[in-house]
Amino acid sequence: MPERVIVFDVNETLWDLAGLDPLSTHVFGAARARAEWFEQVLNLALTSALVGTFDDFTSLGNAALAMVAAKRGMSLKEEHIARIAAHIVHLPAHPDAHAALERLQRADFRLTVLINSTAAVVETQLDHAGLTPFFDVILSVDAVKRFKPALEPYRFAASRVGMPTSRLRMVAVHNWHITGAMAAGCKAAFVARGRHIQSAGSTTGRHRTHAGSRCRSNR
Amino acid sequence: MPERVIVFDVNETLWDLAGLDPLSTHVFGAARARAEWFEQVLNLALTSALVGTFDDFTSLGNAALAMVAAKRGMSLKEEHIARIAAHIVHLPAHPDAHAALERLQRADFRLTVLINSTAAVVETQLDHAGLTPFFDVILSVDAVKRFKPALEPYRFAASRVGMPTSRLRMVAVHNWHITGAMAAGCKAAFVARGRHIQSAGSTTGRHRTHAGSRCRSNR
Repeated sequence: MPERVIVFDVNETLWDLAGLDPLSTHVFGAARARAEWFEQVLNLALTSALVGTFDDFTSLGNAALAMVAAKRGMSLKEEHIARIAAHIVHLPAHPDAHAALERLQRADFRLTVLINSTAAVVETQLDHAGLTPFFDVILSVDAVKRFKPALEPYRFAASRVGMPTSRLRMVAVHNWHITGAMAAGCKAAFVARGRHIQSAGSTTGRHRTHAGSRCRSNR
Repeated sequence: MPERVIVFDVNETLWDLAGLDPLSTHVFGAARARAEWFEQVLNLALTSALVGTFDDFTSLGNAALAMVAAKRGMSLKEEHIARIAAHIVHLPAHPDAHAALERLQRADFRLTVLINSTAAVVETQLDHAGLTPFFDVILSVDAVKRFKPALEPYRFAASRVGMPTSRLRMVAVHNWHITGAMAAGCKAAFVARGRHIQSAGSTTGRHRTHAGSRCRSNR
């Protein structure tokens, strides 16, 4: 059987950023500031990929924290920024993640991750969550200095695993990630966790009808 | 004095989408679904600009409505979609918009708009809000089939008004719009309305320090 590679997204796909909500309530006075923050990080990442600038995901995360604080008329203390950063790398994995990865590994899939974060951050996250042994290589967009869902990161991943994009299947809870992956020629699987929804619109639909799978997780 | 052109963003910059909140409460049971919806539209627009697909902004708006509904386990009725579309084109302008445009026009600025929406939608919006007489041309990204903040729409605007991008000043409440405008070589002015915040991060900061202005509106 030809070797098959499954490439995981990590934030929200392998662990739930809702684990940051209590700290968000403590710092911002609102749990929902955490979701606003991640939306803002993503907007900064997409914008920078579009206009051709690049700062690493941690820098964008901090810029977004300052924006979420400014919306509330606050400025963040260094101590709070440090606590949030420490919390992010110690989030538990989704309860179904370990068993799912184990099953895929037993079925002889080669597993890897492709992340917008820096490799240093995700290595700590995977170690803490006990998921490091499943992945043979960690691929960060830092290598190409352009964020997903730009096409370069997907092509970079294919090149690093030594296969055409058509032999990679990207797994994510993010509609935009699935769209980018398929536009780059990858297969993809959308994981329908919680509030994450795949677009039925033609922008993604035109790709999805060719190659997409849909997985419903237990939560 | 050389002719100077000011190019306005419209949604949220000239009128407040919060005017949709009561309808959002009626349809989705939550006023905040409206803000979620606009975030989702924007995410679809940025994603499509990044991966190189294009559907007009109205199509993305409808796809995003379906996603916001699906998050809530609902499917939208045709009647609701039609009511939302009708409401969008009949939003009142921000209370300060008319006087501000009048002042700029008297000061001999040439005023135009550059929109992600279709021209048909914004023409109805401007007519209803009584702002049509201020603008000499309406520029929609439909002409270049790539959404702001990709650089093409800004270059297209410069070409259509017959000037280099450096002679255009883009006005918007959106951080991403300011970032794109400056990356394309335009000047820009960020309007700090309500919950809109400009990034102090380096991604936008590197542009802002050269050319940006900051306006604080009355609301």
